[in-house]
Amino acid sequence: MPLPAEFTLIAAFRPLAAPEALALQDDAAVFAPPPGRELVVSADAIVAGVHFLPEDPPDLVARKLLRVNLSDLAAMGAVPLHYLLTVSVPRATGADWFAAFARGLAEDQARYGLTLLGGDTTSTPGPVSLSATVIGHVAPGRAWRRSGAQAGDALWVTGTIGDAALGLLALRGETADPNGRLAGRYRLPQPRLGLALDGIVSAAMDVSDGLLQDAGHLARASGVGVQIEAARVPLSAAAQGRLELCLTGGDDYELLLAVPGDFGPRLQAACAQAGVPVTRIGRCVRGPARVEVRDASGERLVVGAGGWSHF
Amino acid sequence: MPLPAEFTLIAAFRPLAAPEALALQDDAAVFAPPPGRELVVSADAIVAGVHFLPEDPPDLVARKLLRVNLSDLAAMGAVPLHYLLTVSVPRATGADWFAAFARGLAEDQARYGLTLLGGDTTSTPGPVSLSATVIGHVAPGRAWRRSGAQAGDALWVTGTIGDAALGLLALRGETADPNGRLAGRYRLPQPRLGLALDGIVSAAMDVSDGLLQDAGHLARASGVGVQIEAARVPLSAAAQGRLELCLTGGDDYELLLAVPGDFGPRLQAACAQAGVPVTRIGRCVRGPARVEVRDASGERLVVGAGGWSHF
Repeated sequence: MPLPAEFTLIAAFRPLAAPEALALQDDAAVFAPPPGRELVVSADAIVAGVHFLPEDPPDLVARKLLRVNLSDLAAMGAVPLHYLLTVSVPRATGADWFAAFARGLAEDQARYGLTLLGGDTTSTPGPVSLSATVIGHVAPGRAWRRSGAQAGDALWVTGTIGDAALGLLALRGETADPNGRLAGRYRLPQPRLGLALDGIVSAAMDVSDGLLQDAGHLARASGVGVQIEAARVPLSAAAQGRLELCLTGGDDYELLLAVPGDFGPRLQAACAQAGVPVTRIGRCVRGPARVEVRDASGERLVVGAGGWSHF
Repeated sequence: MPLPAEFTLIAAFRPLAAPEALALQDDAAVFAPPPGRELVVSADAIVAGVHFLPEDPPDLVARKLLRVNLSDLAAMGAVPLHYLLTVSVPRATGADWFAAFARGLAEDQARYGLTLLGGDTTSTPGPVSLSATVIGHVAPGRAWRRSGAQAGDALWVTGTIGDAALGLLALRGETADPNGRLAGRYRLPQPRLGLALDGIVSAAMDVSDGLLQDAGHLARASGVGVQIEAARVPLSAAAQGRLELCLTGGDDYELLLAVPGDFGPRLQAACAQAGVPVTRIGRCVRGPARVEVRDASGERLVVGAGGWSHF
């Protein structure tokens, strides 16, 4: 019964829609960007069995989909505005799945202040495959970039690193997670939106594919070397002693920030105001655009092979 | 080898990128909409085995992905500007697949005048799953809608109806297609962009899920009845005698237009200027928001069950 199913789906998503979505009834949405602002857009896909577990609750999957995308807006210093969705699910997927999925979207729409513009739902003979395109806005010319880091900048990171990678292990029964906190970090990233860091950071990006790999992206984009002091990387109690996993594991969705040395106190004040922990973990140096990890005595450590990737 | 693969992929897509995509190197793209214009956005997903055949050439798949999305912009009277992509492919997918896929994108970017803003590539244990979000622009308040049809309007459609559905049959070996024209209609839609119909059409939409089903959407959105004269529906020579399939088959990607009676000649002139055939197939009437099909003598025909859907 394709036609009733389509109506049911659109009815499930309609309460999420912006006025600009035209009640999800037209071929596209029409919207006017906020006057005097630039738009920031990003798209990410997540697939069952790759980015989330097939048995994860649909509302959490929906929220993860939004949040991995919102983390990209956070990394650019943008304010969320709208999103579009594509949802490919097995034919047998029931209305209850969509209701739970829409409930998760509604919760995080309200939390992060964005609304649905449109999208597409289709069947797939494979696993649940989802994508979102998020649209945010910034003051013209003020988006944070990966390429602005200078030799001499300090390198900072928000939150703790590695808990999500441990959470995935916990969900697989491969490590302890008595209160489910680690699993929660894997299932539900916390995009670091709303930090008033304009004029403070010289470069920013989100940490999604592992700190080492992502720091390498920042190093190459900026043309600087990056030195990370292993002992300074913020690890939760559960992550103590698992440095290699934490440095290479994915799904942190924290922000990696390059900050001129003088601005450390301003950075700390701005993060404190938002209730976001921030830790200085190293610095940018002249030299080859690569990442070095050093121990407390300044000796170079050799760690894994470039980080974990979804691919 | 996740890291080299990611570099290879970004290198394949970088030539497609708009300057606003920041070389696909940041977490998001930053762009300023054209001054004084509204933005029109739509997202569609296509999945191997559902919307295209697993053995279809990657360049054609890429072009179909763009074109099904561009058809939504065409339906709103919008001018294409940018797009974002998500690409989920089996792990074993080689660089040659991506090269061919990017070649198809490049060809249709040039043809339709849009550029890549960003996206995401990931692995999937399932079939190739693709999505695109397209962004276009219109003069403020001038986007065409499905909801504007009035009783008394004539109903027109571009091109021919049903060839793509026949093309899918042909690709399955279930109907003849000596010169491959029908298969071509299935594999490579022709989005009807660039028609100067502003001020002429009272409602518009694209025909993607079958003429009958889509005419029903227009009827409900506008609150009018729709009467289609079966003998007037434009069928190619290959489609003669297969009316039911043609009225319910998907993937036409033609435009369905409601046009005040007096404006027929202006519509025909505007379509002729763009080299696009257009045919009057019926009219909008007062009464229940549903679709009736009538034969040449005005008798009502009963056809299938509401059209074919991707779902």
